[in-house]
Amino acid sequence: MNQEKSLITPRTLSGFRDRLPKEAQAKISILNAVSEVFLSYGFMPIETPHLEYADILIKQGSEEIQKELYRFKDHGGRDVALRFDQTVPLARFISQHRHELELPFKRYAIGNVFRGERAQKGRYREFTQCDFDFIGSNSLSCDAEILQVICSCMYALGLQEFSIWINHREILNGIFEYFGVSEAIESSLRIIDKLDKIGLDSVKMELQNELKLESSKIDSIMDLISIKQTSHYSDFFKEIEFLKGYNDTLKKGLNDLESMLKILDGLESDISIFRINFSIARGLGYYTGIVYETTLNRLRGIGSVCSGGRYDNLTQSFSQERLSGVGASIGIDRLIAALLELNLLEMKGTMARALIIAMDREYFAFAHKIAETLRQSKINVEVYPDAVKMKKSLSYANAKGHEFSIIIGENEFKTKTLTLKSMTSGIQMENISVLHVLQLIKES
Amino acid sequence: MNQEKSLITPRTLSGFRDRLPKEAQAKISILNAVSEVFLSYGFMPIETPHLEYADILIKQGSEEIQKELYRFKDHGGRDVALRFDQTVPLARFISQHRHELELPFKRYAIGNVFRGERAQKGRYREFTQCDFDFIGSNSLSCDAEILQVICSCMYALGLQEFSIWINHREILNGIFEYFGVSEAIESSLRIIDKLDKIGLDSVKMELQNELKLESSKIDSIMDLISIKQTSHYSDFFKEIEFLKGYNDTLKKGLNDLESMLKILDGLESDISIFRINFSIARGLGYYTGIVYETTLNRLRGIGSVCSGGRYDNLTQSFSQERLSGVGASIGIDRLIAALLELNLLEMKGTMARALIIAMDREYFAFAHKIAETLRQSKINVEVYPDAVKMKKSLSYANAKGHEFSIIIGENEFKTKTLTLKSMTSGIQMENISVLHVLQLIKES
Repeated sequence: MNQEKSLITPRTLSGFRDRLPKEAQAKISILNAVSEVFLSYGFMPIETPHLEYADILIKQGSEEIQKELYRFKDHGGRDVALRFDQTVPLARFISQHRHELELPFKRYAIGNVFRGERAQKGRYREFTQCDFDFIGSNSLSCDAEILQVICSCMYALGLQEFSIWINHREILNGIFEYFGVSEAIESSLRIIDKLDKIGLDSVKMELQNELKLESSKIDSIMDLISIKQTSHYSDFFKEIEFLKGYNDTLKKGLNDLESMLKILDGLESDISIFRINFSIARGLGYYTGIVYETTLNRLRGIGSVCSGGRYDNLTQSFSQERLSGVGASIGIDRLIAALLELNLLEMKGTMARALIIAMDREYFAFAHKIAETLRQSKINVEVYPDAVKMKKSLSYANAKGHEFSIIIGENEFKTKTLTLKSMTSGIQMENISVLHVLQLIKES
Repeated sequence: MNQEKSLITPRTLSGFRDRLPKEAQAKISILNAVSEVFLSYGFMPIETPHLEYADILIKQGSEEIQKELYRFKDHGGRDVALRFDQTVPLARFISQHRHELELPFKRYAIGNVFRGERAQKGRYREFTQCDFDFIGSNSLSCDAEILQVICSCMYALGLQEFSIWINHREILNGIFEYFGVSEAIESSLRIIDKLDKIGLDSVKMELQNELKLESSKIDSIMDLISIKQTSHYSDFFKEIEFLKGYNDTLKKGLNDLESMLKILDGLESDISIFRINFSIARGLGYYTGIVYETTLNRLRGIGSVCSGGRYDNLTQSFSQERLSGVGASIGIDRLIAALLELNLLEMKGTMARALIIAMDREYFAFAHKIAETLRQSKINVEVYPDAVKMKKSLSYANAKGHEFSIIIGENEFKTKTLTLKSMTSGIQMENISVLHVLQLIKES
């Protein structure tokens, strides 16, 4: 007997979660929309395993990520781990299939990654990454295109008011170089990356701790790093022309940014979407060129919904061939939250527009026939599977959000007609033909 | 220096694999097509984690599956495992979110599962499952609908010639009951399940070993189990009417099948697609009602591409509430292989129709502007990111499979015109307007 078995409490691991139908469908609709954009630019999907040899993943990961790795021995005693991102697997993929791939290689990848971080609100240990990368060319045309793709994705999701904050790693390097700092740039950039979170004063304090410089020098560094573009980019570059004289590194960074903005200028996306901001650091070690973050103007607080940049040597762990690339990653979970808050995401309980209700088991063949006729006219429709009291099936339709119910009672069955009821107005039309029902649903 | 670092050999684990762009895109197009079908019947997606508490997964898994489980201790010392199917997580999901779900609950789930099986050709340790289930109703309307969904999925993928072999667990139970066998039915069904693989004689031998019956009795059992429908189902039921007299179990099974076929009769899918076959056992322990397998008429050898059936008590490990359900699973990998063999699957190197080639870096802004104009007219297009020798960019277009290349040389740039080259015929039209290019691509 069932009752005598001990039951297990149904539960998910801390930091892991289910998605119920409404949210799962909303997520799929977002991923479909951005996938369409990727394909329209010539990016193609690839798929790599969730599980890899641990040494493959560890070589390129930071120490922090090593601690968070889900790592274990498999049945064959192999040292394996769940992927923590899709970039290291991309590097492995490119090196492994190098002779099968055309360069430049443009791929997107949508998949789940795993990090055993301390569980926090809104942070998950398994989460979805949506990455697109352009590998094997150092042309600024690629950087410009990745930014266009970001814009197209935002538009495809109904987001119009957003800003893309851009910077160049060489600008930051050049600033530190100018002030005689050549070591600890990497750790300094990680501190600067926290500017939005901890504020200017705290950043200055941490930098001082890190660099052991006099505070006036820290102030001067941060004065430069705090520069943000407020005018048209051509005016902005005139204003900061003097920085190009500081050193070649700064000059290179500024020139790259200017050349790229010239490619983007004149395209449909308003050029004022792109805003140069010298404090954008993107903590990740591997960026070497132009970097960016995307914020929603009406929801700055949630942080960047799409970030990325150029890196120099993606496959260095696996191959001696140097492959430069540029790519970005969309933060799907943040985007879902944002779209919900902005009322741009419909959460539907069903994608079917109508529920067909058969009042007797004998009518099921007829009900399924009607359903099929409607589906052939591209109307999604569901058949309620039990012959029960009308109250129960109508309450199901209400709960799921069907716009219509189509009722087959004795009279309808005999005359091969239908009763159509609007679930919003409650108005119903009795004993009408299938064609009439089809027409009414199509027109509404 | 890079050269001095030791390189790691890029490799995937045995039994795991990458999908290159062509195959990844083909798989996505299949999953999109079947997802559309699921939604059109009112099924909605859900998502559950790849990693679960091991006790959740183990309770319902067979011993074999326990051996194959990827199980380990996480950072918090929890006993965790990668899911080996999506059915146990579905049971856990329904029990955990019972109060948030409407019954009947119709969900689909597309996701990867992990089994540490011995690696064999064509068998992977990580593979994709595509499941759809109808939970919380024992009406035959659900069984009929799941079969309709299978047909619609096949049609959506361009497959017309297929057969769905149906049976009822009660028919098999009734046959064994008739011969006085009441124990070891489960293991006998597992033997019968191998009929296609090992042949009738071997099945008889194994059954004899299992059941310790005289061989004439085994022959009689197998005579019944070998019954297959060859005529119209209404004639078939007349022919085997006598079996209903054997016992109530057999009668119940046969009546269910007949009632369900009556629901399916008259729908667009040819009723002769459904073929009763008493040897369909579906080894899995949890099936209790109608069961089925789908084979492709021109590729019988690859086995079933979609199987499923009714089960009685999905959530028994987690809850005392009995929830009956019916569902099926599409074998995505087999389907991809089959569609390729039948020439029904296009493997495209790119979803972009044209490659725009700028002969000088100065023309990139213009090239991206043209690309944007074409994309706004729903023509997918790619910009070659480097200004290189034409031979190189054209060879890229050929390798990727672009239909057209659009060339911007000095003359085109000056006159704001384009040269359009057909990659198939090699014919090119020089210095034509953007609108003309757009029109020519649209019309081709």
